[in-house]
Amino acid sequence: MKVNEWTQLWLDHHRMYEGSGVWALELAGFDKDRAVIKSAIREFKRGMEALTGEKTLETASGSDTHKLIISQNSALSKESYHFEGSADGITLEALDENGVLYGVFAILRQIACGKKADQVSEKAAPSNPLRMMNHWDNMDGSIERGYSGESFFFENEEIIIDDRTRDYARFMASVGINGVVINNVNVKGAASYLITDRYFDKVKELSDIFGEYGIRLYLSLNFASPIEIGDLDTCDPLDKKVITWWEEKVKEVYDRLHSFGGFLVKADSEGRPGPFTYGRTQADGANMLGDVIKPYGGIIIWRCFVYNCTQDWRDTRTDRARAGYDYFMEQDGTYHDNVILQIKNGPMDFQIREPVSPLLGGLKQTNQMLEVQIAQEYTGHQIDLCYLIPMYKEVLDFHTHCGSEKDTVADVVSGRTMGNELAGMAAVINTGNDKNWTGNDLAAANLYGFGRLSFNTELTSEEIAREWIAQTFNLPEKETEILCSMLLRSREIYEKYTSPLGIGWMVTPNGHYGPSVDGYEYSRWGTYHRADHLGIGVDRTDKGTGYAQQYYEENARMYNDPLTCPEELLLFFHHIPYTWMLKTGKTLLQHIYDSHFEGEEEARGLATDWDKLQGVIPKESFDRVKERFLLQLDNAREWRDQVNSYFYRKSGIPDQKGRTIY
Amino acid sequence: MKVNEWTQLWLDHHRMYEGSGVWALELAGFDKDRAVIKSAIREFKRGMEALTGEKTLETASGSDTHKLIISQNSALSKESYHFEGSADGITLEALDENGVLYGVFAILRQIACGKKADQVSEKAAPSNPLRMMNHWDNMDGSIERGYSGESFFFENEEIIIDDRTRDYARFMASVGINGVVINNVNVKGAASYLITDRYFDKVKELSDIFGEYGIRLYLSLNFASPIEIGDLDTCDPLDKKVITWWEEKVKEVYDRLHSFGGFLVKADSEGRPGPFTYGRTQADGANMLGDVIKPYGGIIIWRCFVYNCTQDWRDTRTDRARAGYDYFMEQDGTYHDNVILQIKNGPMDFQIREPVSPLLGGLKQTNQMLEVQIAQEYTGHQIDLCYLIPMYKEVLDFHTHCGSEKDTVADVVSGRTMGNELAGMAAVINTGNDKNWTGNDLAAANLYGFGRLSFNTELTSEEIAREWIAQTFNLPEKETEILCSMLLRSREIYEKYTSPLGIGWMVTPNGHYGPSVDGYEYSRWGTYHRADHLGIGVDRTDKGTGYAQQYYEENARMYNDPLTCPEELLLFFHHIPYTWMLKTGKTLLQHIYDSHFEGEEEARGLATDWDKLQGVIPKESFDRVKERFLLQLDNAREWRDQVNSYFYRKSGIPDQKGRTIY
Repeated sequence: MKVNEWTQLWLDHHRMYEGSGVWALELAGFDKDRAVIKSAIREFKRGMEALTGEKTLETASGSDTHKLIISQNSALSKESYHFEGSADGITLEALDENGVLYGVFAILRQIACGKKADQVSEKAAPSNPLRMMNHWDNMDGSIERGYSGESFFFENEEIIIDDRTRDYARFMASVGINGVVINNVNVKGAASYLITDRYFDKVKELSDIFGEYGIRLYLSLNFASPIEIGDLDTCDPLDKKVITWWEEKVKEVYDRLHSFGGFLVKADSEGRPGPFTYGRTQADGANMLGDVIKPYGGIIIWRCFVYNCTQDWRDTRTDRARAGYDYFMEQDGTYHDNVILQIKNGPMDFQIREPVSPLLGGLKQTNQMLEVQIAQEYTGHQIDLCYLIPMYKEVLDFHTHCGSEKDTVADVVSGRTMGNELAGMAAVINTGNDKNWTGNDLAAANLYGFGRLSFNTELTSEEIAREWIAQTFNLPEKETEILCSMLLRSREIYEKYTSPLGIGWMVTPNGHYGPSVDGYEYSRWGTYHRADHLGIGVDRTDKGTGYAQQYYEENARMYNDPLTCPEELLLFFHHIPYTWMLKTGKTLLQHIYDSHFEGEEEARGLATDWDKLQGVIPKESFDRVKERFLLQLDNAREWRDQVNSYFYRKSGIPDQKGRTIY
Repeated sequence: MKVNEWTQLWLDHHRMYEGSGVWALELAGFDKDRAVIKSAIREFKRGMEALTGEKTLETASGSDTHKLIISQNSALSKESYHFEGSADGITLEALDENGVLYGVFAILRQIACGKKADQVSEKAAPSNPLRMMNHWDNMDGSIERGYSGESFFFENEEIIIDDRTRDYARFMASVGINGVVINNVNVKGAASYLITDRYFDKVKELSDIFGEYGIRLYLSLNFASPIEIGDLDTCDPLDKKVITWWEEKVKEVYDRLHSFGGFLVKADSEGRPGPFTYGRTQADGANMLGDVIKPYGGIIIWRCFVYNCTQDWRDTRTDRARAGYDYFMEQDGTYHDNVILQIKNGPMDFQIREPVSPLLGGLKQTNQMLEVQIAQEYTGHQIDLCYLIPMYKEVLDFHTHCGSEKDTVADVVSGRTMGNELAGMAAVINTGNDKNWTGNDLAAANLYGFGRLSFNTELTSEEIAREWIAQTFNLPEKETEILCSMLLRSREIYEKYTSPLGIGWMVTPNGHYGPSVDGYEYSRWGTYHRADHLGIGVDRTDKGTGYAQQYYEENARMYNDPLTCPEELLLFFHHIPYTWMLKTGKTLLQHIYDSHFEGEEEARGLATDWDKLQGVIPKESFDRVKERFLLQLDNAREWRDQVNSYFYRKSGIPDQKGRTIY
């Protein structure tokens, strides 16, 4: 594959101004031959020349020479950087090599966003120690919930390494990502052999490329490996033979992959094997692996996505939303130091609106990290525009009330609340081997945004949007405003035309694109809206499933009462009559009708706005996105009409405005 | 694959009594070296020895010798036979070789059903000239809507020929089948090349084996062959290049396959190419192929399954049920003599209850044949017991009122009504390479039954059931009664727990097993129930879509009025309030509740009855069926509860008997 066969995303380095000098480099405390430093210098040269036309020379002197002085500052924290531009050049300080690399990318970002080199200035330290991407890439090349082509890591059960691999690492480093899990959490078939000789050489090669950009490689693990690739008949985590098997296996892994980060494990979930099979706890499983990997400095990331996926829809007492808390809270405090629980933002599964998982901050003595999904599984398949950063921000800003201060999710998962070092954020990535990496060019804003947000959770959604627009398209002001507004409106619009007020689902089973109001209503997945001719919603109060009581008192009280429950989550927590009066003065049913008509109309507004950008957005990008807007309009119309028809047919209550409902 | 790896179905030839003689053969007017006659003699020897212990010897004489005298009788009609047993043996008369073969199978059948050889007697002529099986087998080995394993004709794009092939032909001939289409009507990929050198040798070999049992081989055709396997850029049936291409192709086919029967064509249907693409009529397409194949004595079977499969669910004027009639009636009288239209029994698609297609008998100057589906696509996937012969009988017995006499569907499709020679019945077969051929051992009753019924449409469902039970299991009287009753009850039971009163669908999309009441309600397939909080059903009267008016006056009037419309089809023709009073004195809604509770309970009754047969049914068969009954009970419960919950939640009207609805 040739370089021109894929885009450079936000590292497209538009010419921002014509510089008049050259750059000379000075390093103090860092070794220019170290891989990460070499990458930093390479990026600076490449970026600066593209952005300003100024070259960086090995030996330069004269009045037109600016200096980039990179020096070590032991007062700074891990991976942080300070830089300051002046007429003489730029000084960049960092404690470590990653700090240097991130500093260089930040300098380039500021220039791409409009500053001159002598104006750049920033002091930054990452909010989160772990900033990770999770690939759900399968070794046959397919991607679970991938909407951007096939995998660029795997094809026909082989690992692909080419120029694209390096560009991928560059992009990730440029937004501060320092860990990547390369394979799907559902580890089957060939993927079980990633920790064997069959793949070590190639994994090592990949790991080395990542290493040049300060990124550690992680693997998803098959908990049943002792059975599937070993010759044991058990994977009981307390069985001595199993422990010995893992000890030997992990030694083998680290003999071959010195800088290996560790394992991500999906156990006892949706058919995956796990400790429960042997009557063990999740902690038993995670701690065993943690102990085995500890001597090598590795970590175990244990997913909390454990629930009964063979529920009887008739059963209204069992509540999937409760499952994570029910399974993991009891063992709070028993997880070992190099084990971290990875918790999805909500208690269900990446719906367009969910409350924050009560496990986040509920756990008070356990390393925990936040998992979000950039891949738009339930949010439009990278066809529909849905800028997800505002959703992530809501989650991060949520006060768990786990303490009187430092109680937001951002505090908890960064380690600030508990003072723990193992903490952070992970995202299910939305990339594939499509030319533009993310299917919809605009979906790259989510990829960029997650990285930036995980590095700095204080950034606003709008700041991130503007940064991304400037670096990607370098648009004139008017067009920047249009595109920025499109991004910022998009999540609410998607929510309006899909499932109302936090109830979620109502989506086509399996595929998860397009409406099917009852699609998950009589299923085994624990995903019900319980609509009848009088009302809709799940009673998760103390009179219902008791889910609301999994929160700390303040939140539990708020959610428990439909009058204080935030209305965007009303149907998640309460079964509400269609005639219930919302704070807007509309009935619930009229709200459903109105929001669906509005959502569809506003989606058309997005498409109209996009048309205004014709000519300033490169034609190829413009056309790709335009094509998707046409599909989004079909989708929005289908959602609008199916949802409205469903409720009209069920309730018999007409739209007050007399619009067409079928 | 070894012989023991598959069962002998109804040719299992249980020992019925111990005969005391030997058999000698005498032929008059038939050549014992002809393939079909050899098969007949082979079957007689094998069957008679197994059933009675009596051998058939080349040279036999003495007082214990019975004679089988086979003689030609030119007074008999095609494929018919007369036989009569006596103390001296059996005389069998026929006009042609197929008649001899069918006569032999009939003799064996009568003995297997309890007669002694000296008591056998029958005069039979086939009701239908064409008695065909349509395989939906794909060349990768998969079977579209197959529930009995993979194909035994194809594997990895190669044709399989082994001992099983011959047994298949024997089974088909034993019930009078004289035509088999070996490949799926959706012709794609490798299947397009069945009419090329790549496969001719193997197709020839298969055709020869079929020929030994009086069966002609047919192929499904890709209408776009001139483009896909030729080098033309069109398949317009009126284009001279296209006609020339077909002339050469068909010559090539007949050069290689002398006894080839002809082509089955699915055109302009569900994404398949066809004449409409070029603004041509269905008749244009069919007649062109008919003319090309005529010199070789071949025929073109043209399916009438043409409808708009991208309908907007919002559109209540378009009615898929109308489509077949709308597309094909206009051209009545224009189809050539060697073209025959193959018409599904109902206007939709093999639902558990549909009215008879108005095309059947509506067409008065066109060869037409009836298509039914033995494969249980919508009738339980050969998991649920559903003996379909009663349904086929209803269709055959239906008075179309196309004339004052000979107006039943049986009359029309047999050729009796119009006096046409090209006429008959076809079925989508339910076989696969499972050991027992049909997944569920009891589903073989449908396979057997279709063959028998197509040969003799006067047989009753019960007669066929008893024949099949006797030959397959040879049960004691009490157990025969139990199993016979199970079969005869099963279709009504399946109907009770699935979709009510002819409305159909309500099935899981794509898979077509299990309930999803709204699964097809907002789809593009033209399959809607239009349920709201007050009622359900599709208005197909003169005030609605006008479908009812496609029937002859007597039927149109009957269907048009909800008071005279047969209640089992009430919701197919009318939108009816839940409070509507049925003739039983129940409301529509209470009928829905009651029939679903009853259906589930009666399904349990079937399973209980099956348990009574433990010990008399061979263990392996018993276990296979038992396992399926357990699944059927889950399915019946799921249908009961989802359908009842759906209507209760929508209508708000409780069950009068206070049973649990969720």
